[in-house]
Amino acid sequence: MGRDGHSALKAKTKNISIVLYKPKYAGNIGSVARAAKNMGIGNIVVVGQADYDREAMEQRSTHLAADVLDQIRYVSSIDEALHDFQYIVGTTSRMGKARGPFLSPRVVADRIADLSQKNKVALLFGPEDKGLANEQLRFCHAVVTIPTSREFKSLNLSHAVMIVCYEIFTASSAAASPTEASPKLALSSELEGMYAQIRTLLADIGFLNPENPEYWMTDLRRFFSRGGLLSREVKIIRGISRKIQWSIKNKKT
Amino acid sequence: MGRDGHSALKAKTKNISIVLYKPKYAGNIGSVARAAKNMGIGNIVVVGQADYDREAMEQRSTHLAADVLDQIRYVSSIDEALHDFQYIVGTTSRMGKARGPFLSPRVVADRIADLSQKNKVALLFGPEDKGLANEQLRFCHAVVTIPTSREFKSLNLSHAVMIVCYEIFTASSAAASPTEASPKLALSSELEGMYAQIRTLLADIGFLNPENPEYWMTDLRRFFSRGGLLSREVKIIRGISRKIQWSIKNKKT
Repeated sequence: MGRDGHSALKAKTKNISIVLYKPKYAGNIGSVARAAKNMGIGNIVVVGQADYDREAMEQRSTHLAADVLDQIRYVSSIDEALHDFQYIVGTTSRMGKARGPFLSPRVVADRIADLSQKNKVALLFGPEDKGLANEQLRFCHAVVTIPTSREFKSLNLSHAVMIVCYEIFTASSAAASPTEASPKLALSSELEGMYAQIRTLLADIGFLNPENPEYWMTDLRRFFSRGGLLSREVKIIRGISRKIQWSIKNKKT
Repeated sequence: MGRDGHSALKAKTKNISIVLYKPKYAGNIGSVARAAKNMGIGNIVVVGQADYDREAMEQRSTHLAADVLDQIRYVSSIDEALHDFQYIVGTTSRMGKARGPFLSPRVVADRIADLSQKNKVALLFGPEDKGLANEQLRFCHAVVTIPTSREFKSLNLSHAVMIVCYEIFTASSAAASPTEASPKLALSSELEGMYAQIRTLLADIGFLNPENPEYWMTDLRRFFSRGGLLSREVKIIRGISRKIQWSIKNKKT
């Protein structure tokens, strides 16, 4: 890759962040920082406490990736972590837990190499013991499952991060020549506003089961996020919803 | 992957061994054991001393990969480690040191997925600080270089092992299994029925410009078709539309 190719690569990976949801071990955060920097990713967000043992982190990051540790953004909630991202990819090893589609790291990496040219992308990883729950997965536009042997599926957190980052690095290097513009997607905060409005509307018309209002919402989230919604499209959907709500309240008889 | 595909995969990976040349840290051996087992590889050979701290190893392997630790073969020389392998792949991050050709993990993995059906394959990794020297690289049939950012090339030993094993696992799975089923999308006739219903609804609520009713419909078609709608999702959208129409006509005042 020449000088220009390398600049193009850097320009892309700067839009990619790793978001660790409530990691348990400081050492793993250090290992994640090292793996991320190896693959050209410098942004890490940690959801949870901010008082992880620095020495344990640095022992694993090595001093050469200590700058990544310095720049970690610590936040207290997942909403705060994700609100200004446009494309969020969750990782899970449990296919039974969330409903699909589950993509391979390679397929997602191709997508991210493209989208990250103009969009902020978050790679979301759960805690070491339990992984991501449905409450976190519902923020995700895509869910990636790392293929493993059936006998032993549980990956170390930094190993999972490394595989995903390695695939993105490989895909971005291959695509380092500027390609045609990728679309600019809606922010997570715009999407959440739209989903809240749709949920209110569906509750008003009695479509949602009050016992389990998220049941249909999960389906809606899945197909809206599969293709990626543009800002303009979110506005159209909200406009339609508003008009429907108005029509229900102001019916001419 | 079906039962047969999985058996085919196991048959291949049993011929693959990871050979660690003089690793310095017991913890890294544990992490390597975990990564290897995740990717279906159970054979590890360590060249060097045999008295690594078991507790440090097991802390990183987790007890679920402790069986891999039990089966490690410790040998005192590289000749002893490699003598009964048919294909040996070395890993290095330093292109200047050995003479090429340097292959990517993906290219080597394809080769190994094929060769390991009938040959014993060794993946050779050097010590954490210095990597493999020419004295070890001369045993190798191929040398693989893991691509990294220019800013920080030094990979953790277990991360390097994970990337190579992951590529082999992916290549072996692709060769062993019929491709995964892609989702079944809605028929064009189902989609057209849905669009007709949506257009009626939007006309009823006054959202469409009677002069140019297709204006907004084109936007809707574009984002619904971008991700590809499933049959089930078309039914959900039609159910919601029906319920909205009912609510508008039967508003309680």
